[in-house]
Amino acid sequence: MSIITLTTDFGIEDEYAGVMKGVILGINPNVTIVDITHHIPPQGVIQAAYTIKASYHYFPPGTVHIVVVDPGVGSERPILALEKQGHRFLAPDNGVLSLLLDDMDVDSMVYVTNSRYFLRSISQTFHGRDIFAPIGAYMALGMELKDFGDRIGKDKVVRLAIHTPVPTKDGITGQVISIDRFGNLISNISEEYLASMCPKEKISCIEIRIGQRKITGLSQSYEANKGSELLAIIGSRGTIEIAVNRGSAQKYLMAEKGDTIEVRM
Amino acid sequence: MSIITLTTDFGIEDEYAGVMKGVILGINPNVTIVDITHHIPPQGVIQAAYTIKASYHYFPPGTVHIVVVDPGVGSERPILALEKQGHRFLAPDNGVLSLLLDDMDVDSMVYVTNSRYFLRSISQTFHGRDIFAPIGAYMALGMELKDFGDRIGKDKVVRLAIHTPVPTKDGITGQVISIDRFGNLISNISEEYLASMCPKEKISCIEIRIGQRKITGLSQSYEANKGSELLAIIGSRGTIEIAVNRGSAQKYLMAEKGDTIEVRM
Amino acid sequence: MSIITLTTDFGIEDEYAGVMKGVILGINPNVTIVDITHHIPPQGVIQAAYTIKASYHYFPPGTVHIVVVDPGVGSERPILALEKQGHRFLAPDNGVLSLLLDDMDVDSMVYVTNSRYFLRSISQTFHGRDIFAPIGAYMALGMELKDFGDRIGKDKVVRLAIHTPVPTKDGITGQVISIDRFGNLISNISEEYLASMCPKEKISCIEIRIGQRKITGLSQSYEANKGSELLAIIGSRGTIEIAVNRGSAQKYLMAEKGDTIEVRM
Repeated sequence: MSIITLTTDFGIEDEYAGVMKGVILGINPNVTIVDITHHIPPQGVIQAAYTIKASYHYFPPGTVHIVVVDPGVGSERPILALEKQGHRFLAPDNGVLSLLLDDMDVDSMVYVTNSRYFLRSISQTFHGRDIFAPIGAYMALGMELKDFGDRIGKDKVVRLAIHTPVPTKDGITGQVISIDRFGNLISNISEEYLASMCPKEKISCIEIRIGQRKITGLSQSYEANKGSELLAIIGSRGTIEIAVNRGSAQKYLMAEKGDTIEVRM
Repeated sequence: MSIITLTTDFGIEDEYAGVMKGVILGINPNVTIVDITHHIPPQGVIQAAYTIKASYHYFPPGTVHIVVVDPGVGSERPILALEKQGHRFLAPDNGVLSLLLDDMDVDSMVYVTNSRYFLRSISQTFHGRDIFAPIGAYMALGMELKDFGDRIGKDKVVRLAIHTPVPTKDGITGQVISIDRFGNLISNISEEYLASMCPKEKISCIEIRIGQRKITGLSQSYEANKGSELLAIIGSRGTIEIAVNRGSAQKYLMAEKGDTIEVRM
Repeated sequence: MSIITLTTDFGIEDEYAGVMKGVILGINPNVTIVDITHHIPPQGVIQAAYTIKASYHYFPPGTVHIVVVDPGVGSERPILALEKQGHRFLAPDNGVLSLLLDDMDVDSMVYVTNSRYFLRSISQTFHGRDIFAPIGAYMALGMELKDFGDRIGKDKVVRLAIHTPVPTKDGITGQVISIDRFGNLISNISEEYLASMCPKEKISCIEIRIGQRKITGLSQSYEANKGSELLAIIGSRGTIEIAVNRGSAQKYLMAEKGDTIEVRM
């Protein structure tokens, strides 16, 4: 029993995700396919990069993660397959996997070129179906990366230019990198960073600024903050999240992805 | 082969539902996971309560139903697991399962406290992933409720204050409890109630009022009503539904959840 | 291991798709269920017809395809099961399968009438759950079409009146039949038709008109067209698609389904 996850910008209105699954099951009938999401914004390579990084390690080792956010489909952009901590990943080489490369634990990496494992007819617009689905299905059958193409070095792959938090004289400045269905503002400022800067007993003294608003301390739960005031909490990705109990911080602040969040210790 | 269903307010834009599935499959690789819906409105405990009640009995006995609409996540609210008619349910104790408790057939009920079966690290905002997913996976493996915590009595669990239909001198008054994708208005007035009040041959004489409009009799199908007039029909939940053939009753009437529906015999 | 696909207009906000899966798994626990889409527009028989035609052949033979876009539910409209190229299909007889009948390769076709395989209680509004799900589950168990009802002839089934492209003196005129999540305009003008009319080396000379705009030649990829100009490309359904690189042709042109596309050789 093996697992394939799908992370794409295909949406679910069209047949795109469904036919990828048809191709996969035709090759590998026993695989379990899990949608992480098909609602990455069109061409949203950065959002997909954050999503797969936040998700993959909750799946068991051996899982194959297919990420298809691929504005360069049909052009000369290569297709990348890599292995990390027992997980395998398949995606266009456009930076969408580059957040996985920062640690030293990528074991091997190839460009997928062996067309023997592609569908017989390759369209110009839908490699998700014609290349990623069959290659992913064979990967989940246990084939090795080297069967699909030649090994390449980490230095060759495309990296995203992503905002990372910047230390300031009395804290750190980060960004809103995602806004979820609840209107929670998910930042890139990690709990680990706070812990390294600030003794645990002082965490109630940190001050968080977003827009014209100021929040003091971190809440222990959404409900700990009675009323509908803004709160800050360590969210499910292990980073600071700005929220409103039973409300939407996004609406409350008219916030957008990319907005600045400042933390002062 | 066992089944887990998921009913949540997580939506499908974010990775939340996907990572729950990753955690489940890591523990129980052979389970089949079915999404009932992830589109309960945020914090919509009442809507989730109606949805799981309308759905569970179409699954085979032995199914584990996980319901995560959990505004109290991270607070002291308990987590409830219960057994009813061979089905098992797992949810926060916030009333979301309380429509299942009205009959006398709940066999056992526990508060889930045995953290041995939780993920090792528990976030403050996402117990769906950290507690519900692993506990549900172990339930589907066949573990018993008592393995997860102590038995509790029915009188201890939170009940929702839900509108129920009220008999009137010549009929009954209920509410619109749900509006589906087609704009059909689903009420809480059941066919059984009508049958108990009104001989079958007279059902064509009942009069249904919603807003300023009056409908006479029940249709046998959406198409039985030619044109685009309002009609009433017994819907798929076994209750009166207000519809427009090939149109939307919701738009036709500018209706909202909670609107009053009066039936006169 | 067998596969059932679902193509419906149920959406995913309500429990409809989920309970269909519950019914299927209760009968056939080992089947793999794949959503092609539940976002056919309400009563969108034509769109569903195009979707299933574009999708089914990417699944392995033996797959059972259930298509429920069924405005006539509860009326006298028959239910159709048919076999084609080793695939099996189940749908209301309202034309939704009629694009599959144009070729000569439909092997057998029945009206489904054997209520022994239906759920015991049949609602007036949700045959997806009460009839299509159980019949589809038994089909995927390997039962034969003749077990479900009597054979009927091709001439009896409902056909859709669908626009097909019309040859002109120097080319062909077709329509936009679908607009995907990316705003790509998918036409009904096939690559095969172009190839039959125009030598391959001259394909760069064809002229495509949509609205007041003119496109010359076909692009080899979305990115081949730098800038945000309109382009035409052979899309994943093997037909001409109008697109904007990293943009939306639908927004660029304010296009709608049904818009005319003219090709001149």
